[in-house]
Amino acid sequence: MKAVPAQMLLRGADAIISTALAEDLGRGDLTTLALVPERSPAVGRLLAKSDFILAGWPVAARVFTILDPKVRIQSKIRDGQSIKAGTVIASLRGQARPMLVAERTALNFLQQLSGIATLTARYVQAVQGTRARITATRKTHPGLMRLEKYAVTVAGGLPHRLGLDDGILIKDNHLALAGSVTDAVRQARTRAGRKQPIEVEVETLGQVEEALAAGAEIIMLDNMSLSNMRRAVNLVAGRALLEASGGVTLRNVARVARTGVNLISVGALTHSAPAVDLSLEIEPARGR
Amino acid sequence: MKAVPAQMLLRGADAIISTALAEDLGRGDLTTLALVPERSPAVGRLLAKSDFILAGWPVAARVFTILDPKVRIQSKIRDGQSIKAGTVIASLRGQARPMLVAERTALNFLQQLSGIATLTARYVQAVQGTRARITATRKTHPGLMRLEKYAVTVAGGLPHRLGLDDGILIKDNHLALAGSVTDAVRQARTRAGRKQPIEVEVETLGQVEEALAAGAEIIMLDNMSLSNMRRAVNLVAGRALLEASGGVTLRNVARVARTGVNLISVGALTHSAPAVDLSLEIEPARGR
Amino acid sequence: MKAVPAQMLLRGADAIISTALAEDLGRGDLTTLALVPERSPAVGRLLAKSDFILAGWPVAARVFTILDPKVRIQSKIRDGQSIKAGTVIASLRGQARPMLVAERTALNFLQQLSGIATLTARYVQAVQGTRARITATRKTHPGLMRLEKYAVTVAGGLPHRLGLDDGILIKDNHLALAGSVTDAVRQARTRAGRKQPIEVEVETLGQVEEALAAGAEIIMLDNMSLSNMRRAVNLVAGRALLEASGGVTLRNVARVARTGVNLISVGALTHSAPAVDLSLEIEPARGR
Amino acid sequence: MKAVPAQMLLRGADAIISTALAEDLGRGDLTTLALVPERSPAVGRLLAKSDFILAGWPVAARVFTILDPKVRIQSKIRDGQSIKAGTVIASLRGQARPMLVAERTALNFLQQLSGIATLTARYVQAVQGTRARITATRKTHPGLMRLEKYAVTVAGGLPHRLGLDDGILIKDNHLALAGSVTDAVRQARTRAGRKQPIEVEVETLGQVEEALAAGAEIIMLDNMSLSNMRRAVNLVAGRALLEASGGVTLRNVARVARTGVNLISVGALTHSAPAVDLSLEIEPARGR
Amino acid sequence: MKAVPAQMLLRGADAIISTALAEDLGRGDLTTLALVPERSPAVGRLLAKSDFILAGWPVAARVFTILDPKVRIQSKIRDGQSIKAGTVIASLRGQARPMLVAERTALNFLQQLSGIATLTARYVQAVQGTRARITATRKTHPGLMRLEKYAVTVAGGLPHRLGLDDGILIKDNHLALAGSVTDAVRQARTRAGRKQPIEVEVETLGQVEEALAAGAEIIMLDNMSLSNMRRAVNLVAGRALLEASGGVTLRNVARVARTGVNLISVGALTHSAPAVDLSLEIEPARGR
Amino acid sequence: MKAVPAQMLLRGADAIISTALAEDLGRGDLTTLALVPERSPAVGRLLAKSDFILAGWPVAARVFTILDPKVRIQSKIRDGQSIKAGTVIASLRGQARPMLVAERTALNFLQQLSGIATLTARYVQAVQGTRARITATRKTHPGLMRLEKYAVTVAGGLPHRLGLDDGILIKDNHLALAGSVTDAVRQARTRAGRKQPIEVEVETLGQVEEALAAGAEIIMLDNMSLSNMRRAVNLVAGRALLEASGGVTLRNVARVARTGVNLISVGALTHSAPAVDLSLEIEPARGR
Repeated sequence: MKAVPAQMLLRGADAIISTALAEDLGRGDLTTLALVPERSPAVGRLLAKSDFILAGWPVAARVFTILDPKVRIQSKIRDGQSIKAGTVIASLRGQARPMLVAERTALNFLQQLSGIATLTARYVQAVQGTRARITATRKTHPGLMRLEKYAVTVAGGLPHRLGLDDGILIKDNHLALAGSVTDAVRQARTRAGRKQPIEVEVETLGQVEEALAAGAEIIMLDNMSLSNMRRAVNLVAGRALLEASGGVTLRNVARVARTGVNLISVGALTHSAPAVDLSLEIEPARGR
Repeated sequence: MKAVPAQMLLRGADAIISTALAEDLGRGDLTTLALVPERSPAVGRLLAKSDFILAGWPVAARVFTILDPKVRIQSKIRDGQSIKAGTVIASLRGQARPMLVAERTALNFLQQLSGIATLTARYVQAVQGTRARITATRKTHPGLMRLEKYAVTVAGGLPHRLGLDDGILIKDNHLALAGSVTDAVRQARTRAGRKQPIEVEVETLGQVEEALAAGAEIIMLDNMSLSNMRRAVNLVAGRALLEASGGVTLRNVARVARTGVNLISVGALTHSAPAVDLSLEIEPARGR
Repeated sequence: MKAVPAQMLLRGADAIISTALAEDLGRGDLTTLALVPERSPAVGRLLAKSDFILAGWPVAARVFTILDPKVRIQSKIRDGQSIKAGTVIASLRGQARPMLVAERTALNFLQQLSGIATLTARYVQAVQGTRARITATRKTHPGLMRLEKYAVTVAGGLPHRLGLDDGILIKDNHLALAGSVTDAVRQARTRAGRKQPIEVEVETLGQVEEALAAGAEIIMLDNMSLSNMRRAVNLVAGRALLEASGGVTLRNVARVARTGVNLISVGALTHSAPAVDLSLEIEPARGR
Repeated sequence: MKAVPAQMLLRGADAIISTALAEDLGRGDLTTLALVPERSPAVGRLLAKSDFILAGWPVAARVFTILDPKVRIQSKIRDGQSIKAGTVIASLRGQARPMLVAERTALNFLQQLSGIATLTARYVQAVQGTRARITATRKTHPGLMRLEKYAVTVAGGLPHRLGLDDGILIKDNHLALAGSVTDAVRQARTRAGRKQPIEVEVETLGQVEEALAAGAEIIMLDNMSLSNMRRAVNLVAGRALLEASGGVTLRNVARVARTGVNLISVGALTHSAPAVDLSLEIEPARGR
Repeated sequence: MKAVPAQMLLRGADAIISTALAEDLGRGDLTTLALVPERSPAVGRLLAKSDFILAGWPVAARVFTILDPKVRIQSKIRDGQSIKAGTVIASLRGQARPMLVAERTALNFLQQLSGIATLTARYVQAVQGTRARITATRKTHPGLMRLEKYAVTVAGGLPHRLGLDDGILIKDNHLALAGSVTDAVRQARTRAGRKQPIEVEVETLGQVEEALAAGAEIIMLDNMSLSNMRRAVNLVAGRALLEASGGVTLRNVARVARTGVNLISVGALTHSAPAVDLSLEIEPARGR
Repeated sequence: MKAVPAQMLLRGADAIISTALAEDLGRGDLTTLALVPERSPAVGRLLAKSDFILAGWPVAARVFTILDPKVRIQSKIRDGQSIKAGTVIASLRGQARPMLVAERTALNFLQQLSGIATLTARYVQAVQGTRARITATRKTHPGLMRLEKYAVTVAGGLPHRLGLDDGILIKDNHLALAGSVTDAVRQARTRAGRKQPIEVEVETLGQVEEALAAGAEIIMLDNMSLSNMRRAVNLVAGRALLEASGGVTLRNVARVARTGVNLISVGALTHSAPAVDLSLEIEPARGR
C-alpha cells in the first residue's frame, strides 16, 4: 500500500516534454513561420469539450512556458478536479508563434493524462465504502510511466512500484526461475534485509499460506476467483496486505473490493484509457 | 495523401526504448538480481491472449536485444498480420536476467502499438470499396508519435504529417491570426514555393471555394455534415484532395467515406486505442 | 522550387554554437583568465574590413549572449544587407572576459556565412531578368548545413532540400540500383502518395521524356549542354520544373539561366565561398 | 612552433560525424527507403575528379562504417598523398542503403578537408628552402576546428593552438585591456609558471624589444612590413620565435619567409580553401 | 537494515567511467601518441603494493575494455578478497596505446574503492560477535555514491539509502521544519502508505519513545552516549531497529556495537578512507 | 612548474554537480516532499565543526543556486582561508525544500575539497623557506580531477598536468615501450616542436644526465634517495627543473625540499585527504 507525494511523480517531466516537442517540431513549424509574424501577441483559451477529471495541467502549462518563458497563464482549476464540458480550464496571453507550436504537445499530455484520471476516478468511485484501494501497474506508455502514475494518483488511486528498483515484487516468471514461493520469499528477504517489504504473486490458496509463512508483507492474488479471494482474506487475517490482480473491470471491481482485499490493481487505467476532448482557441491579442 | 515507407517511422526508436528502460530500471531490477543468478539461461514464449493486428514487433525485439545482444529470437510473424489469441508470436532464448528486465517494456510497446493497428484495421475495413483512405493525426502520446504512426501504417492507414515541419497545414487557429482562407493560402504559397502541397482547414462550402481558388492542394473539411461533404466533393471535382476530419467514429466512417472524400483523419486511432492482451512466459532453459 | 522561411533555418543553431565554443574553450581561456580581471567591463566594435553581404549576425550575437547574458548589443544592420568596408556592424557593451572568449567563434560564424551570402548574391545578380532561381545543394560543411542554407536564402537563393527526409530526389546512384527513370519515379510515387513532389536527376533528353511521362514534378538536368537544356525546356513546356546542375560558374550562369530552366543549383555557394574580412575591437569601458 | 601527432586531431571526430548525419537524415532517407530494398548489396568507387592532396579519408571511411559496421573498404591511399584526377581513392562493398545515406556526408568531409590540405601544400611548397613553417589559425569552420587543423598538418603545416586553453597567446584586444606588452607578458608569466611558453602579438619594433625583454618565447608580428620583419629577425637573433601574421597570400608568402621568420600563419588555409571535386559511384554488387 | 545485491550498485558505472576518461584525455594523450606506434602490442601486470581488501576490479577492467574492446584480461581474484602486497591482481594483453591511456583512470577507481573496502573491513571485523551491522552514509564523493556503497558492501557493510528517493529518513533539519518526532513520523506514514519503513533521527530517550509510539521502523540515535544507547536498546526491546550514528571511530565501534544497537553508520568509510597502493607495469608483448 | 588561474579549474563544475544531484535525488526526495510544504521559507547556517582550510565554497554555493535560483547566500569567507571550528561560513535564505535537497551534495563537495586544501596547506607549510613547490598528481577521484586540483591550488600548491593532453610527461611505462630516455625525449621533441616543455621520469643519475643532454625541461626523480636527489640538483645546476616524486610524506617532505629540487609531487593530497567536518543547520524563516 505504497503512496508517494504526487509532486514527486512530476519530477523530470521536462525531459519527456523536450522529447515530445522535438519530435513534433523537426526543423521548425513551417505553417506558423509562414503565416504568423514574429512577436505577434495572442490570447488562448483552453476549453473542456467533454466531462472529465483533470490531470496533467502543470505539464501542459510547462510546455507553453518552455516555448515562451513570458507567457502569462491564468487558471483556477487544479489537477484532480472534476470538469464539465464547456469549462474554460485556463487562459493564456503571450506570443502567437510559441503558443501555436506548443498547442498540440500540450493538449496531447492533457488529454491522455486526464483520460487516465477520469477512468481511475470511476474505479475509485466504484469501490467507495470498502477498504480496497485502486492501484496502477507498470503497463504504461513507454516514457510516460511516472506521469501516468501521477494521473492515477490525483484521481485517488495509488501508484504501485515506480520501477523495477522500487521494492521487491516476485512474479510468476521469477517463481519459474527461482523455485517455490517459500524459497523465493526467503531468498529475497536475505538479500533485501529486514524492514523491506516483499510482495509475491500467487495463484492458489496454498501459495497464499506459503507466502504468509515465509514472511511476505504483500500477497498478489493473480486471477483468483471471488470465493478464493474471500478465503485468502480470512486466511491471512490482516497479517499481510492482499492485492487482487487480473481481469478486473468496472463491472466487477465492486465485487472484488467486497472480498476484503486491500489493493486492486488495474492495468487498463494506464494502457487503455480513452483520451478526453479538449481544445485550445487562439486569437490575436487586442489592446495592450 | 502522403505516404512514407513504414521503416522510416521506426528510425530513432532506440532513443525512446532507452528512455523507457531507464525510467523502469531506475537503480536496477531489485527482484531479479535478488533471485536469479547471473548468466542463468532461459527461454521465453511471447503469447497473444486476444485477437489483434500485430504492430511494434521489431521494437519489442529490439528491447530484448539491447539488454542481451546475444539473445536468439525466432518469429515467423510480421507487423500488420492478424493474430489469433493463443498464437505464439515469438520464442526467445538467452539470459534470464535481461529477459526479465526487458519483459514489461517490450510488452508495453507491443500492446499499445498493436492496439493502434487493430483499431486502424477496423476503420480501414469499414471504408473498403470506397476511394477514402484512413489517416492518423498528431494526437499521439508524447514521445511516441512516429511509432504510433508506424502502427497506423502497417494496418493500412496513412501517417499524415510527421511533425510541424512536414508540410503546410493551415488550421483554424492560423486563420484566426493570419486572415481569410484566401490570404493564408496565398501567403503560404509565396513562402513555400511552387510544387509544395498546401493543406487548409475549412468549415464552410464558401471556404472550400476560397481554398480551391487560392490553389490549395488539400482541403480539410472540419466537422462538416455529410451533405456538405458531398457538396464539397462535387464542387472540387478532383482539383484538390478532400480530407474529412472531426467526429468520425466506427459507426459513421463508412457514410463519410461514401461522400467521396479522399482522406478521413481519425484522432482516436492513436489517442484512444485500447491495448491488446499479450504475455511473456519465461522458464529455465533446459539442455541447450 | 522549394522555399522556407529563413528563420526556420536558424532553429537549433544553439547546438552548433555550443559545440564550437566547447572545442575552442577546452579547459578555459588561459590568456584571458591570466590577464583580465573578473567582471571588468568592456566595449566592442564589430567592423567590416571588406565589402560583403551580411549573413549570420543573429548567430554571432547569440554567441556573445550565451557567454554573457547581460551583454548589450546594438546594431541597425540586418542579414542580407550589403555592407561596405569600414562599416561598424554592431557595438557591444558587457564584461571583457566573455567578450574575449566569444570573439573568435562569433567571427568564424559571421565570416563564413557572410562569405556564402556574398557569393550567392553574385550568382543571383547574374541571372537577374531571367526566370531562373539560384539554389544551394547539400554540399555543405558538416554540422553547418542549415546555417549555410540560411546564408544562401538571405542573399536571395533557394535552400533546396534540407536533408534526406525533405522530399524525394532520385539521383544517378539511385537509378543504378533501382532501374530506369520510369520505374524509379513510378515506384517513388507509389511509396510517397499523390501531391508529394518527386524530383529526378537525368542526363539525356530521352530521360527527360521518361521523367515527364512518369509524372515527376521536378527534373534535374545533370551536366547537360546549353543546347540540350534549351531542348529540354521546350520539350517540358512548363509541365515540370527544370533544374540545371553541374559545372555552373559565375561565368556561365547567365547563359544557363537564359535556356529557360527554372532552377540552377550551385554547390560552390556552400563548399567554396571564401570568408569575408571582419574584426572585433575590444577596449575597456570608460565611465559608467 | 608547436606540433602534435596528427592522429590526436582525429580524436572525437565521431561527435561531428553524428551531428552531420543527424542533420542530413532528419526522419530518414525518403528516396532510398522508397527505391532500394533492405539489405541489397552494393559496391562503390570513390573517384577523384580533380588533382589534390587527400585529407580526411579516415573520417570519410568512418561515416560509412558507422552506418554499416560490416562494410568492407579497400584503399591504398593515405592522407597527405597527392592524388590525380581519375584516381580511384577507395572501393567499398556493403549494403546499398547505408552507402547511399553516407555518401553526401562522407564526401562533404573529404572535399573540404582535402581542399584545405591542397591549399596548405601550396603554401608549404612556396616557402621550401627557408626556415619558415606554415601554420594554421583559429579561423576555422565552427565545429570543425580540430579536423581542419588535421588537414593542415597532413599537408606539412603546423596546427598552432588547438583552442583557448592550449597555451598563452596575448593578442591586441588583451593588450588593450591589460596594459603594455611588458606588463602583460610579465603578468602571464606569473600566472602560468616557468617553462610554459608565452606568445604575444606586437605591431612595432619597440614592442618586439619589450616582448623579448619581458621573456616571451614567441612574438607574433602583426601586419608588419617586410623590412620591419627583417629588422625584427635581426633584433631577436634567435632568442625567441617570430611569427608573421596578417595579409599573407600565395603571392607574397615566399618573400615573407625569406625575412627569416620562423612561423607564418595563414587564416585562408581554413577559412577560404575551395573544396576539391570527388564523387562516389554506387552500383549493385554482382556475384559476390 | 537494508541490503541490495552488490551488482546493482555497479549498474550505470559506464557513465562515470566516461566522465573520468574524458576529463583526463582532453584532446588526447600527447605523450603516448608521440612515443608509441599505433597497434603495438603490450602486456600489463596489475600489482598490489600494500595489503588491502580489493574493490572495484570490474570497474577498472571495464576502463581497459572500453578503450580496447579486444584486450584480454586474466584474473583469479574477486572483489572482497584480501590481497597481500606483491600479489599480481590481473594480467592484461592488448594494444599499448589504450592500455596507457586507461592506466591512471583504472587505478584511480581501484585504489579509492579498495581503500573504502579496506577501511570497512576493519570496522566489520571490530564488531564481529555482536549483532551490529556496519553501514555507510550518503557522505560520499560526488558522482561516486553508488560505487562507494558497492565497496562498502563487498567488504561486509550495508549500503544504507541509495539516495533521497530510497526510503524515508527524517533528520534533524526535517524535524526543525516539520515539528515533533510524533508529528513527523505520523505525517510521513500518511504520505508513504503502510508497509513502507520509516526511519527517524532522535537525540534523546524521550524522542526514542515518541518515535516508537508513532510507529517508526528504524530509529537513528544521533551522537548518543553509550549508556543512553543501552537504555534505548532496552526501551525499544526489538520493536524497531536502532542505528547508532555520529562520532563512531575504530577505537569505540566495538563498545557501540556491544550496546545492542542493530546498525552503526560510519561516514568515514566513504569520506576519509585513504587510497591503497597499486601499480600497473606495462611492457612490449613478446612473441605473441 | 606549471600554474593556471584557479578559476579555470572551476570551469565545467556544473556537469559534476548535476551528476551528483541526479544520483542522490533519483525519483525525488521522498522525506522532504512528505514533510515540508511547497514554498515554505527557511534559513540555513553553514558551520565549521573542525579547523580547516576552506575550498570548494563556490561549488557548494552553486549547488544551492541550481536548485533554488532565488536563494540569497551571504558569506565573507573565501576559498584558501583558514577556518576555525565554530565559524559560520555562510548563511542562506530561500525555500526549505531545495535547501534540504542540496544539503548533502553541497556538503560533500565542501568537506572533500576542504580536506584536500587542508592537507595541501600542511605540506606547503612544511617546505616554507625552500625553493620547492608542492604539486598534485593525476591520482584523483574519478570525475573530480579539476576540482581536486583547484583545492590544491587555493592552498598554495601547483596543479601539475590537467590531463593527458596537457603537456608531455614520459613515464616508466612509456620508456619500457619507447626505448631509452634519450630516444624518448628526442622523439617527443620532434613530434611536439620547439618551445614545448618535455618532462621525463627517471630513476638513476645516469638517466638524469641523459634527460638533460636530450633537452628535457623537467626531470622527475622517481623514488630517489635524498643523497641522489642532491646529486641530481648539483648535476643539473638549473638547466632543467627537478621534480621529486614517490614516497613523500609530511614527515620527510622538508628534507626532500632541502635537497634543492624545484617540485615535489604528492599523490596523497588528492587520493587520501580525510574530509573536514561541516554541517548545515536549517530552520523555518521567521518574519519576512
